[in-house]
Amino acid sequence: MAPSTPRLVVPVDLKKKPWEQTLPLHNRWHPGIPPVAEIKVREVFRVEMVDWTGGMIKDNDSAIDVKTIDLSSVHYLSGPIRVLDEEGNPAQPGDLLAVEICNLGPLPGDEWGFTASFDRENGGGFLTDHFPCATKAIWYFEGIFAYSPQIPGVRFPGLTHPGIVGTAPSRDLLNIWNDREREVEENGLKQLKLCEVLHSRPLANLPSTKGCHLGKIQKGTPEWEKIANEAARTIPGRENGGNCDIKNLSRGSKVYLPVFIEGANLSTGDMHFSQGDGEIAFCGAIEMSGFLELKCEIIKGGMKEYLTPMGPTPLHVNPIFEIGPVEPRFSEWLVFEGISVDESGRQHYLDASVAYKRAVLNAIDYLSKFGYSKEQMYLLLSCCPCEGRISGIVDSPNAVATLAVPTSIFDQDIRPKTKVPVGPRLVRTPDVLKCTYDGNLPITKNPSAMA
Amino acid sequence: MAPSTPRLVVPVDLKKKPWEQTLPLHNRWHPGIPPVAEIKVREVFRVEMVDWTGGMIKDNDSAIDVKTIDLSSVHYLSGPIRVLDEEGNPAQPGDLLAVEICNLGPLPGDEWGFTASFDRENGGGFLTDHFPCATKAIWYFEGIFAYSPQIPGVRFPGLTHPGIVGTAPSRDLLNIWNDREREVEENGLKQLKLCEVLHSRPLANLPSTKGCHLGKIQKGTPEWEKIANEAARTIPGRENGGNCDIKNLSRGSKVYLPVFIEGANLSTGDMHFSQGDGEIAFCGAIEMSGFLELKCEIIKGGMKEYLTPMGPTPLHVNPIFEIGPVEPRFSEWLVFEGISVDESGRQHYLDASVAYKRAVLNAIDYLSKFGYSKEQMYLLLSCCPCEGRISGIVDSPNAVATLAVPTSIFDQDIRPKTKVPVGPRLVRTPDVLKCTYDGNLPITKNPSAMA
Amino acid sequence: MAPSTPRLVVPVDLKKKPWEQTLPLHNRWHPGIPPVAEIKVREVFRVEMVDWTGGMIKDNDSAIDVKTIDLSSVHYLSGPIRVLDEEGNPAQPGDLLAVEICNLGPLPGDEWGFTASFDRENGGGFLTDHFPCATKAIWYFEGIFAYSPQIPGVRFPGLTHPGIVGTAPSRDLLNIWNDREREVEENGLKQLKLCEVLHSRPLANLPSTKGCHLGKIQKGTPEWEKIANEAARTIPGRENGGNCDIKNLSRGSKVYLPVFIEGANLSTGDMHFSQGDGEIAFCGAIEMSGFLELKCEIIKGGMKEYLTPMGPTPLHVNPIFEIGPVEPRFSEWLVFEGISVDESGRQHYLDASVAYKRAVLNAIDYLSKFGYSKEQMYLLLSCCPCEGRISGIVDSPNAVATLAVPTSIFDQDIRPKTKVPVGPRLVRTPDVLKCTYDGNLPITKNPSAMA
Amino acid sequence: MAPSTPRLVVPVDLKKKPWEQTLPLHNRWHPGIPPVAEIKVREVFRVEMVDWTGGMIKDNDSAIDVKTIDLSSVHYLSGPIRVLDEEGNPAQPGDLLAVEICNLGPLPGDEWGFTASFDRENGGGFLTDHFPCATKAIWYFEGIFAYSPQIPGVRFPGLTHPGIVGTAPSRDLLNIWNDREREVEENGLKQLKLCEVLHSRPLANLPSTKGCHLGKIQKGTPEWEKIANEAARTIPGRENGGNCDIKNLSRGSKVYLPVFIEGANLSTGDMHFSQGDGEIAFCGAIEMSGFLELKCEIIKGGMKEYLTPMGPTPLHVNPIFEIGPVEPRFSEWLVFEGISVDESGRQHYLDASVAYKRAVLNAIDYLSKFGYSKEQMYLLLSCCPCEGRISGIVDSPNAVATLAVPTSIFDQDIRPKTKVPVGPRLVRTPDVLKCTYDGNLPITKNPSAMA
Repeated sequence: MAPSTPRLVVPVDLKKKPWEQTLPLHNRWHPGIPPVAEIKVREVFRVEMVDWTGGMIKDNDSAIDVKTIDLSSVHYLSGPIRVLDEEGNPAQPGDLLAVEICNLGPLPGDEWGFTASFDRENGGGFLTDHFPCATKAIWYFEGIFAYSPQIPGVRFPGLTHPGIVGTAPSRDLLNIWNDREREVEENGLKQLKLCEVLHSRPLANLPSTKGCHLGKIQKGTPEWEKIANEAARTIPGRENGGNCDIKNLSRGSKVYLPVFIEGANLSTGDMHFSQGDGEIAFCGAIEMSGFLELKCEIIKGGMKEYLTPMGPTPLHVNPIFEIGPVEPRFSEWLVFEGISVDESGRQHYLDASVAYKRAVLNAIDYLSKFGYSKEQMYLLLSCCPCEGRISGIVDSPNAVATLAVPTSIFDQDIRPKTKVPVGPRLVRTPDVLKCTYDGNLPITKNPSAMA
Repeated sequence: MAPSTPRLVVPVDLKKKPWEQTLPLHNRWHPGIPPVAEIKVREVFRVEMVDWTGGMIKDNDSAIDVKTIDLSSVHYLSGPIRVLDEEGNPAQPGDLLAVEICNLGPLPGDEWGFTASFDRENGGGFLTDHFPCATKAIWYFEGIFAYSPQIPGVRFPGLTHPGIVGTAPSRDLLNIWNDREREVEENGLKQLKLCEVLHSRPLANLPSTKGCHLGKIQKGTPEWEKIANEAARTIPGRENGGNCDIKNLSRGSKVYLPVFIEGANLSTGDMHFSQGDGEIAFCGAIEMSGFLELKCEIIKGGMKEYLTPMGPTPLHVNPIFEIGPVEPRFSEWLVFEGISVDESGRQHYLDASVAYKRAVLNAIDYLSKFGYSKEQMYLLLSCCPCEGRISGIVDSPNAVATLAVPTSIFDQDIRPKTKVPVGPRLVRTPDVLKCTYDGNLPITKNPSAMA
Repeated sequence: MAPSTPRLVVPVDLKKKPWEQTLPLHNRWHPGIPPVAEIKVREVFRVEMVDWTGGMIKDNDSAIDVKTIDLSSVHYLSGPIRVLDEEGNPAQPGDLLAVEICNLGPLPGDEWGFTASFDRENGGGFLTDHFPCATKAIWYFEGIFAYSPQIPGVRFPGLTHPGIVGTAPSRDLLNIWNDREREVEENGLKQLKLCEVLHSRPLANLPSTKGCHLGKIQKGTPEWEKIANEAARTIPGRENGGNCDIKNLSRGSKVYLPVFIEGANLSTGDMHFSQGDGEIAFCGAIEMSGFLELKCEIIKGGMKEYLTPMGPTPLHVNPIFEIGPVEPRFSEWLVFEGISVDESGRQHYLDASVAYKRAVLNAIDYLSKFGYSKEQMYLLLSCCPCEGRISGIVDSPNAVATLAVPTSIFDQDIRPKTKVPVGPRLVRTPDVLKCTYDGNLPITKNPSAMA
Repeated sequence: MAPSTPRLVVPVDLKKKPWEQTLPLHNRWHPGIPPVAEIKVREVFRVEMVDWTGGMIKDNDSAIDVKTIDLSSVHYLSGPIRVLDEEGNPAQPGDLLAVEICNLGPLPGDEWGFTASFDRENGGGFLTDHFPCATKAIWYFEGIFAYSPQIPGVRFPGLTHPGIVGTAPSRDLLNIWNDREREVEENGLKQLKLCEVLHSRPLANLPSTKGCHLGKIQKGTPEWEKIANEAARTIPGRENGGNCDIKNLSRGSKVYLPVFIEGANLSTGDMHFSQGDGEIAFCGAIEMSGFLELKCEIIKGGMKEYLTPMGPTPLHVNPIFEIGPVEPRFSEWLVFEGISVDESGRQHYLDASVAYKRAVLNAIDYLSKFGYSKEQMYLLLSCCPCEGRISGIVDSPNAVATLAVPTSIFDQDIRPKTKVPVGPRLVRTPDVLKCTYDGNLPITKNPSAMA
């Protein structure tokens, strides 16, 4: 084996349930979830992972599994992994953990994924008020490319990345999370605008024993009960990284994560073959099982040196990312714009969420003119490598957001056509073009024409 | 003159005030503002424009001009330009106007620009609660590059674009605008969240005779009074395009604009040498005077064919854009993340504006560790070619936004450093590398080593 | 005028002949040609230039001007320009002159260019044995784009660059040039291979008073006679830079030129709107008049520090280049290969010139299947932004060269087609996709589905 | 197993010799080598391969294995693979075989490679007259990145590709090859220029039974003897593709290969983790074992439709390539130039090989100023993703070639430095920047500043 063959520190067996794995998976954030593996800085190691639902969605033509999914048990994460420095000492709170993604991909033998929108009453999505039904598309991979029988005429290279990379929170940070999310859950409706209420989506997902898996901690024990009632759900991205869904976090990228507890306790999961900015359908990437090959460095005291708390405590920080050198290259993009006026014509004040919703709706409507249903385009824009931008955020009252779609993912030209009457093309041919030599070219010695 | 030399259809003279120009400028949207020029499809024509303030901001070291600016008269636009098809018939409502940006740049002799943040009480900006003072940076151009004496150590190529390209609204569309913006202006405070009120920025900018310029319509006439009281301000982007501030709208791009009145009445202005996504400081691009070389096509009936109304009337549409083939190329980016938890630690529900604010604040704080003040970085992130993305918009309760900054615009390495102890580098040298020929190479006839 | 408005140090007037300009042009390399202008390091200055032929080729449909051109007087260069450091001292022999190309473009009012192949008996070209006739295509510019009435269906953005940037040679260097080129001119035929002789092109272009222009030195004076008989022709690129025809030397690029005489005496010319690698048709770029905006630095003693002589004297050096950040972006390329077997089937030994010739011939033949004549494609591949690569140079006996053509410059799909029988596309639709809500969505309070 | 899991059609076991594999490898081109596997169009299949030497070069610090290598047995190829259409009929002579590279990489457990230059008397290389000794560098992979203990301070992402993809020649084509290569081998010296003779490299590598492996054909049988004496060596690229060493032929690329015999008989091998244009050191890529995931289409009659013979017979054709959408992205390049004047100062006539040699020598010399030996840089430029271009091929007597090196592969800044005296940076700070609010911001209702 080559010195650079990555050591497999977290294997998964897709024939087993997430909780039956040799190194059992977990689906909550909590400092008390014990590490299942240990790595040293500078070694390249391999982590395998199940898809975020742990196999609940099947490769078939029915979306009934999506409609009836139990969302209390997502996302299944691999880890935690305890990180040691070169002397074998664990990373310390206050350090910064640099995680390089050396390689990643689907698990061999499992080269497929799914994109789905949830039912309005069970999960929903960014456009659940427009697309209230559960839908599903299956994607098959041909190396770097994906195609779907449900959305024909489309094929694109994946910008594969893990949806979730995070460190374990400290108890203090966990308390901050639970407090602020409880607040929005309990009092949120009052402050919410109508259009958001219509989503009828959960405002937050508070700790719950239902569906909870805590790795090596045995279900039903008092310790399990205690932690399950405290541990944060994995849905939102937070100070520890977590479910950031940054679609450019692919091969060669680096994540700088704050360390909150000794050993850092790195967890990862939710592998995406590809995702559009925003992951709008919620189950919106091409979700799959997969593997990561990672390399870590510890920047001692790096939290203080590089991160500035953005809130009342030193824990209110966010990770930093470096984008890698290898991404699919597209040269032509069609860009759809949205402003913060909602579908009823109502004006919102510099609301980028409303503007982005409008940009996405505009794109769906436009693309559906090329032989697709709107549901197909909702799923496609959720998972293809499209870019969602905040273009203007200061020009009261309208925020302007844009969605840029690479045109080459379609097998037809999707640009607006200027119907130029195509008559005979006027070609001007220089007279001299018609002259020809007789094929009997004399060999002249070095003519002095230019001298 | 070559057949392809663009015809100058709107000249400006920078020594004159905007309203003294031969073809006087306008700063409102209204169907009644008469065209100042006419062009035919397929001809390349040239439009010159003053900076968005019409020369109110000077090339000096004081920000007093920014602090005391009269914002009632922005933006000064060149046009309207009436668009004819090849037979000389004007574009019709319902058509789509394809405007290609063939070339653009600063006006010769005026190669400089400014970036500014307004005073909290006079204009404000995205981060006015953090940066309430008026500030200003002057940028000088060296061809495609810009540098600023106020922000040393930074130099970058511009992704030059017009902030505003738009067609004239119809009366119906104008009414829709005025109604919905009046609503937010009058009733907005009730629905606004605390953090937004703190901006103390205007919620909308309603029609006003103050500062109004209507091109060829003489100030003070009854016609002027009537139109001035109806005409929409140019601050927000809307259905007609307008102040979209899409920073990638550079050389070779195309804008597909809906046509609402006969002749389309195309206006343009607010040239930016460069801008970051969001243009966060409000006067946040590198603002300059400049020129555009444009070419138009009319797609007959294209509004109906390609745009789908996203609202109660057929007028609720948005333009489409195609990005051009020539952009500055950056291969390394540092990415800052924000989640929808505000600076007080309060949780907001999937609010991309809050998340983006946090991402920008994180970036400012981080970059200020490299020898800059936060004010300098606020201005820089407003005008350099940074990318603002909506990464996650479905993971309740946190929206995740990111801001990607190209690292090569700095003359120092701004990445977090893994302080690897640099001892003597262990180099393994193959023994044979040390062997050398004696310089007396025998000439052997075609050795059969490989045969 | 802004501090960064470039100072115009060499103007040209296109209505005058090259030798009638206020600052008369020159078309030879010689240390005795006196500077016409002086610049200081760090100032941005502007140089204007005529096209390389000084206006001999006209914008019309006849190639007779190409066929009968007097090549003894090309290329007309602007300069020399004497370069001073910040204290006003001239650059010294042994320094390295860093020349940044801040901006460049066609001269306003003259936005057109030409691509031509010369007659086999008067100039020829890389494929003159296949295309012995003079041909010409005229290109018109629409901002960054060029199109030609002679080659319809093609339009591309220019990667505009100067074909020639160089410093004046010292007397010693000039002697080296004249000696080695005389040697090849006099004795070359003996060593040449048959296929090269067939070119019947001049082997070298030795100094000649015919057509000679030496800037400020009056024609016919003894000084003029002396210099004209010594001065090197500008056709080949050499140690001083000169006619390098590096097509990526566009906006934002830097050239590091060796300084051979006091003041450096920088000259430039031969502006190309666009060129393919190799500039195969000889007059093969889109040749035009134009301007450069430049900025210089002097690296004291930089020749010794950075350049290593590759030959018997310290003067045998070559410039170094840095490519700029702004180039047209193409994502799809069709690549044609050539091996060093010539058209007669004869094997050559690792000959990259023969391999490249074959790659170009393959590309011409392939592209001519899409409605073009071979002459049209010869000219196109000479001037469009195609890339010529040396792919393999060690696999005896075949050198492998490739020519990559960006597919998007054509208005048709030029890729080989796999004729897949297009039956009805089998689309699998999940059952649940068919379910619909009745439009009467109940507003449920915060469903606990996920909790 | 997912429907898109590639079927493994040619496995290799690295513990076995190339000729001991279950499907034994071959190292010659001949129509009589029987297929070892069969595939159908549109299926994605997997081919594994040993490194080109079949394991002769080891992961250690001695170059003795390189110095004494037996080159008679390279390259070991996997295949031939017989290609069937959807009805099960084999591809026919005259068809075009489109081979898409869906994925590729090193073999799991064998993530390392080597770059070497051969001894002048045993293989040599492009610069063997400068670097006559055998040298070797070992590269270890960290996912997409490679680093070498022998060349520290360098790390780069691989543009991984197969050096060899080819179809079997027909007997007629084989005869053409053998005739023309015998001719150069026998008569070559007479026509060769001095500098090339000095290479003392074989001029061609004619068929030879020594080291010959023919897959399933038993060594020593009369059939083996016959074929071994006719079969072409794999060193040069030829009409069937073969050893093209096109470094951009990576994930997502397509090769269009002519079909010369029934079934096409596709073979592949010589996997490169990375290679520079030209592969100058001969064993110059990062050579490794690896796998390919391929998908084929047959374009019926495509040879006639798309390829034009460039020689006396219809067999004188070359493949076409399409470059894929995923390549490492570099934004900054340093470019070295060479002209066709050799190291002795002698002028060659438009010789691109000499010009490229000079460009490479210039680059080696320049880079060796940054703490490296020239041998290290010779190996590095052979395997890193540098681009070798033919910039000018018409400007008699000098061909101009360039070598562009991405600067970010080094951990130090390798650009020439303009030593600007760094005094205190003059920063102009606007007065108003100093004003601050007192932190007690009054909440004003919607100021009318802008209205």
